[in-house]
Amino acid sequence: MQRKYLAKILVTLRPSVLDPAGVAVQSGLKQMGYDTVDHVRIGKYIEFTIISPDETKARQDLNNICDQMLANPVIENYRFDLIEVETQTGVF
Amino acid sequence: MQRKYLAKILVTLRPSVLDPAGVAVQSGLKQMGYDTVDHVRIGKYIEFTIISPDETKARQDLNNICDQMLANPVIENYRFDLIEVETQTGVF
Repeated sequence: MQRKYLAKILVTLRPSVLDPAGVAVQSGLKQMGYDTVDHVRIGKYIEFTIISPDETKARQDLNNICDQMLANPVIENYRFDLIEVETQTGVF
Repeated sequence: MQRKYLAKILVTLRPSVLDPAGVAVQSGLKQMGYDTVDHVRIGKYIEFTIISPDETKARQDLNNICDQMLANPVIENYRFDLIEVETQTGVF
C-alpha cells in the first residue's frame, strides 16, 4: 500500500546571511509609508505531492530532496510539513 | 501604545497559472529518482516585523502591502499569519 503526502517546504536564508532582496523590499515599503516594517527576509516556498509507503520514508526522502536540490545548506535552512492526503491501494 | 507583530506571508501562483520553475524542479527530481513527486509549485515566503496600534490595523496594512508590492493579484494569491511578538510602551 502506498500513501500520498502533500509536502510544504520553506527554505529561508540563515539569520547570519545578508538578504539584499529583503533590504530592497524594506526600502520600497519605507517609500510607500510603511516605515515601521523591519527585519524583512525573503525565502522560497515549495509544495508538491509525493507517494511513499509510510511517513518515515517520506520524511527521509524530503530531507534528501531539500539537502540536494531545494536548499543550499551552506547559507539556507529549511523546514517542512507533511500532510497525508490520500491512501492508494492496488497495484498502481 | 504600539504593538509589534511578526508577519509571515506566502505568495503562491494561482492554480490556473503555469509554473515553469515547478516543472523544472519536478523534472530534476525525476532524474534523481524521485519519480512519485508531482504537482510541484514554487512560491515566495516573506517575513518581517511591523509596529501597529492593533491587529486590525496591522492586517489592513499587510493586505495593502501584499496587493501593492509583494504579490501580483492577477496571477498570484497570498495568505499570511500575524503573531504578536512584543508590546512597546513609551514615546518611541
